[in-house]
Amino acid sequence: MEAAAAKPVLRVAAICGSLRKASFNSGLLRAAAEVCEDSIPGLRVDHLDISDLPLINTDLETDGGAGFPPAVEAFRAKVCQADCFLFGAPEYNYSIATPLKNALDWASRGKNCWADKPAAIVSAGGGFGGGRSQYHLRQVGVFLDLHFINKPELCVQAFQQPPKFDSDGNLIDDQIRERLKQVLLSLQAFTLRLQKD
Amino acid sequence: MEAAAAKPVLRVAAICGSLRKASFNSGLLRAAAEVCEDSIPGLRVDHLDISDLPLINTDLETDGGAGFPPAVEAFRAKVCQADCFLFGAPEYNYSIATPLKNALDWASRGKNCWADKPAAIVSAGGGFGGGRSQYHLRQVGVFLDLHFINKPELCVQAFQQPPKFDSDGNLIDDQIRERLKQVLLSLQAFTLRLQKD
Amino acid sequence: MEAAAAKPVLRVAAICGSLRKASFNSGLLRAAAEVCEDSIPGLRVDHLDISDLPLINTDLETDGGAGFPPAVEAFRAKVCQADCFLFGAPEYNYSIATPLKNALDWASRGKNCWADKPAAIVSAGGGFGGGRSQYHLRQVGVFLDLHFINKPELCVQAFQQPPKFDSDGNLIDDQIRERLKQVLLSLQAFTLRLQKD
Amino acid sequence: MEAAAAKPVLRVAAICGSLRKASFNSGLLRAAAEVCEDSIPGLRVDHLDISDLPLINTDLETDGGAGFPPAVEAFRAKVCQADCFLFGAPEYNYSIATPLKNALDWASRGKNCWADKPAAIVSAGGGFGGGRSQYHLRQVGVFLDLHFINKPELCVQAFQQPPKFDSDGNLIDDQIRERLKQVLLSLQAFTLRLQKD
Repeated sequence: MEAAAAKPVLRVAAICGSLRKASFNSGLLRAAAEVCEDSIPGLRVDHLDISDLPLINTDLETDGGAGFPPAVEAFRAKVCQADCFLFGAPEYNYSIATPLKNALDWASRGKNCWADKPAAIVSAGGGFGGGRSQYHLRQVGVFLDLHFINKPELCVQAFQQPPKFDSDGNLIDDQIRERLKQVLLSLQAFTLRLQKD
Repeated sequence: MEAAAAKPVLRVAAICGSLRKASFNSGLLRAAAEVCEDSIPGLRVDHLDISDLPLINTDLETDGGAGFPPAVEAFRAKVCQADCFLFGAPEYNYSIATPLKNALDWASRGKNCWADKPAAIVSAGGGFGGGRSQYHLRQVGVFLDLHFINKPELCVQAFQQPPKFDSDGNLIDDQIRERLKQVLLSLQAFTLRLQKD
Repeated sequence: MEAAAAKPVLRVAAICGSLRKASFNSGLLRAAAEVCEDSIPGLRVDHLDISDLPLINTDLETDGGAGFPPAVEAFRAKVCQADCFLFGAPEYNYSIATPLKNALDWASRGKNCWADKPAAIVSAGGGFGGGRSQYHLRQVGVFLDLHFINKPELCVQAFQQPPKFDSDGNLIDDQIRERLKQVLLSLQAFTLRLQKD
Repeated sequence: MEAAAAKPVLRVAAICGSLRKASFNSGLLRAAAEVCEDSIPGLRVDHLDISDLPLINTDLETDGGAGFPPAVEAFRAKVCQADCFLFGAPEYNYSIATPLKNALDWASRGKNCWADKPAAIVSAGGGFGGGRSQYHLRQVGVFLDLHFINKPELCVQAFQQPPKFDSDGNLIDDQIRERLKQVLLSLQAFTLRLQKD
């Protein structure tokens, strides 16, 4: 099947909103990479590190807003190369985790690197499993011109029994792994639908 | 009038969400300090600097979450001492400015320093004058247990003619200065109403 | 204690967003009335019926916006008499239940009947237990000038085991009844705090 | 060009959130129909009336939720036939206009008639020109599975000079008519992009 063989692999840039080492949301993104490698041909997850981005301050921009600190430049280049995005979006105080918002802001400056690309959100946490953060993130996406999938949504209530994550933040729940796969399949289908000519 | 003389001055901690030097929102807070000094007895604005707070990462906490980096400790102490808050809340990508969210997050960890205190929001920007940021901030305030005044709201459309700010971000519009005064009077009244025994 | 004996009873107007007979949210409000009668001296719940309000259309107003259809006039009078509000706020399609929004709108026209009064929200439903509706309702409250309590929040996940409601929508879970009591005590305390001179 | 000649016309169902006769938002939708007829080949606007829908009460459903009152059935059929949607979305008390929410709710019951279809929002009003209503509507769209265009957004500040509407609610401003055209072209392009095989 030459045609199938030639089909390019879609690259999902996965970005975790928490900088904490044992973050559950980081664990969800690692699981997403495994799920793609194991069982979703044509979809590949690349983790984008955001821990070295400075706290946003547009006074750090150079060249009249066209130049950025090196860590920002490197991050922006990777965002531009992605076909679509998967956000691991913990909820901090009923809104978006600050490190994630910082990354979203930096790659929106000057030439908006997010523009016109599909995206999906997953989250884990107490209460609504990060849900409040997801709706604020969707509003941000209107301005960034992201196209979010609507369904399925995945908000993992991380502290309900049985345990969903181990102490390193690795996902250990097979039902959630299956729901995560459905999110990825939906993101793949929506990306292809928006890309095809 | 001995009783009036003895009335303690209310301390408003003013926090600007932008780190940019010529920030319009910082200009609004400077104007608020002047307005209080000139014409609102009993209310004083103290500016809280947030530019040296690290990007939030709970792995930076010590003592099981009771200890914080020095800049965070210093900021938290000032938040705890305030009677109420005035947020200068620019809108970044249709939500809260990241440096402001960072400050809100740090002072919420462990013992929540914001709890049960009144607050007001002012903002300046394009489009809705920062309005979208204000509603996301209000949702954050539910968890932080802030009591926001409802009225008046102040969203300055900074790019409409005539100019509202000079090139250093200083407020130069008397009508907006008057509306800012009304916000401060409302914050003062609401703070006294919530405090009185 | 004559002073205590003379303390007027606070009247809570309870409004259910669903018109469905067996509504869980209506059940929460019935339980709230029982809890007050049984164990909260000084607080009384009155149910306000909203089922006969016409769908809002400002062309139905008379006298240049000062007159309303009879059912609307009667409802507005009761809203004006209340000391505070308890909303039973089901979530319809990730936002406020339409009948509740209809009632909020009618009593906001002309002289805003909600102005400057405290309020609390409870909800029951699938998913987040009505949570998304609560945050939209809080944004409406900014314009209506309602003062919502921040804590505790009560979002009942109505379809989790064991059953929370019987088939008539009556609350049958004692833990939720206790949490409902805490909401009412918080509403009472906040109302007294805002009222006292 | 036979292929082009055979291309089916896309049907936009236009729904106005206000029942008021001289509604500005209704005027925007009338202008949208004219713009399509005059200058957008392949796109046609059909106005869907929602004034006779009863206030939603699921007790009015029959056949275990598969049957609806006649006015609801007729409305649902038209929603199902549309290729995409244009909402005229006035802001009532900082959220969605109640008659619009009522229509959204009725066509979501049982088989969701909105599912997987593109949509755009326009609004007119004071303050933010209806903007707060647009973001609440977008959150509703997540559950309804609507695919909203991100850009351009159109929020008409109806009370700024020069006048934007006449006393019957007809749009009389050419710049806004041009922006409305850009919204329609974006909706057309996004609909084709999502439809094409």
